[in-house]
Amino acid sequence: MRIALLGYGTVGSSFHKLIDIKKNLLKEKYGVMPQLIAICDRSGCMINEEGISYEAAYKAKIKSGHICDKDNGMHPLDVIRELSLDLMVETTTANFKTGEPALSHIFESMKRRIHVITTNKAPLALHMPALLEEASLNGVEFLYSGTVGGGTPFISFGEKVLRGNTLKEIKGILNGTTNYVLGRIIDDRLQMNEALSEAQKLGIAEADPTLDLNGFDSAAKLVILMNHLLGNRITISDIKISGINESLPAYKSDQTVKLIASSSPEPKVSMEVIKRGSPLDVSSTYNVLEFSVEELGKIYVTGKGAGGQETAASIIRDVVELKEKLMQKSYQIY
Amino acid sequence: MRIALLGYGTVGSSFHKLIDIKKNLLKEKYGVMPQLIAICDRSGCMINEEGISYEAAYKAKIKSGHICDKDNGMHPLDVIRELSLDLMVETTTANFKTGEPALSHIFESMKRRIHVITTNKAPLALHMPALLEEASLNGVEFLYSGTVGGGTPFISFGEKVLRGNTLKEIKGILNGTTNYVLGRIIDDRLQMNEALSEAQKLGIAEADPTLDLNGFDSAAKLVILMNHLLGNRITISDIKISGINESLPAYKSDQTVKLIASSSPEPKVSMEVIKRGSPLDVSSTYNVLEFSVEELGKIYVTGKGAGGQETAASIIRDVVELKEKLMQKSYQIY
Repeated sequence: MRIALLGYGTVGSSFHKLIDIKKNLLKEKYGVMPQLIAICDRSGCMINEEGISYEAAYKAKIKSGHICDKDNGMHPLDVIRELSLDLMVETTTANFKTGEPALSHIFESMKRRIHVITTNKAPLALHMPALLEEASLNGVEFLYSGTVGGGTPFISFGEKVLRGNTLKEIKGILNGTTNYVLGRIIDDRLQMNEALSEAQKLGIAEADPTLDLNGFDSAAKLVILMNHLLGNRITISDIKISGINESLPAYKSDQTVKLIASSSPEPKVSMEVIKRGSPLDVSSTYNVLEFSVEELGKIYVTGKGAGGQETAASIIRDVVELKEKLMQKSYQIY
Repeated sequence: MRIALLGYGTVGSSFHKLIDIKKNLLKEKYGVMPQLIAICDRSGCMINEEGISYEAAYKAKIKSGHICDKDNGMHPLDVIRELSLDLMVETTTANFKTGEPALSHIFESMKRRIHVITTNKAPLALHMPALLEEASLNGVEFLYSGTVGGGTPFISFGEKVLRGNTLKEIKGILNGTTNYVLGRIIDDRLQMNEALSEAQKLGIAEADPTLDLNGFDSAAKLVILMNHLLGNRITISDIKISGINESLPAYKSDQTVKLIASSSPEPKVSMEVIKRGSPLDVSSTYNVLEFSVEELGKIYVTGKGAGGQETAASIIRDVVELKEKLMQKSYQIY
């Protein structure tokens, strides 16, 4: 399986390391032989038709901080156009204004019948209906399990466990950082800036936590879940979004406040008052999703949000799933 | 698919009603054409080689309180031995002393290469390793998703969502009745007998709640989960069991007490002190299971325990799964 990896931060490089470590397992158990023939980051692209080892990429990155010490003139779109590829893995940084450069990487790959795995939420948040249509039009697989709950498999639960049932609504907490910060404000009476700088020191919040705090990260995940599990065709502009701030809604002693993403009655992300001890009242950095199922009532899946390692592991799972989907179609691409 | 239904209480009769209601869906969507050719309860057996309608069984039951107004001399084991059957569905009452009569119904069916679906936990709690071996020896399918979390699909989550991951331990609350009673004792200072009679009035506890209170129901479910998900081969005698009573273990104000079933370090059901607000602190009649997964950390699935309706629906799901398993093996049995 000939792969181009676009983006070589924590997620991209952890994925590279994982396929090196799991090479034998992937081959023997799943019949997958992944070969990274191109890796691109902001500095340019490293290309090797025989496959790039983790060691080679690591050495280059140690030397110059980038994958290329001198620009070889190849850029990601050239890689997609000029190399013979089976799969493009997109792990660049999320850009919620334009979705770029990931959006172009994905469209260009699909047009050239290259399968796509992405861990970047932004292109999905902004253009998921168009991306699903483009994938189907070109007969390519489009996998994105790492974009939502890479650590807590909400998509897989909804798809595999609830098969044959009727899922009516989803509702939950989709961002661990804001859940931690809100918990410290409400339960321990911290100021928002105190709670936030503590979360940053603990590695729970990023240096720039804007997209967590303003609700965009939760909204992006809600878009992906609603499109995938409820059959909607929406983008982030269909979601009414507000984030967390210090003017909390009024709540009583047996209640608390959470940043809730919900599909009904209208797609929305906002602070909501919920009953203490109810299943959505999860603490610390936990995420939780409530599935309202016609035949089964309400079921909850709870777990921690994903770090770079878990997100990288989700790409491996998607690679295995891609292989199985292709086998079902009797393709032979490796 | 020629079926004998043994046991015609809430679960059995709800299942019968459901296959009548869902007949077209089952045929068109899944290619399943279930035909109940025998129904047995304590009064005897009703037999019709053309299939027994729900109406016919309902009329008989209204008339005499039983499925047979006069004994036709056929008993369940005769039905299994003498009729040509594809599937035996076992829904008799759980008997944790001997497992009978369900145990004999199941063994006899397997020996005659009749597939088995059971919602009765007792034979599994007492003899699951032997039953799994007998099924495999005779090449029959043995499905029991209704025995654990018919309403909350713990088995299906562990099997389908965690595929490819390494499940190390399970731990949780597997009985909604005791969770409700403990919650009322701890949070609202009720006496145990007050909490219990309230639960009985609300239909949360049965008239005889012994098997819930003494931990046996939870232990039976733990046996089934450990054998199915962790590959153990244990019975209920391998579990250290204590139930709930008024001598609670000492706990602090930020803690509470729950009846916890856990696989490690030793298989055990007992009251345990847990931190308030932690994911195992679920209220009311909720059940919850913690999956400790090597690659993903701890993931929790939470939902309500099953009533008769949900358990009947779990038989339908098992029937569909049976059909799919048989298709994969290219059998043709309907």
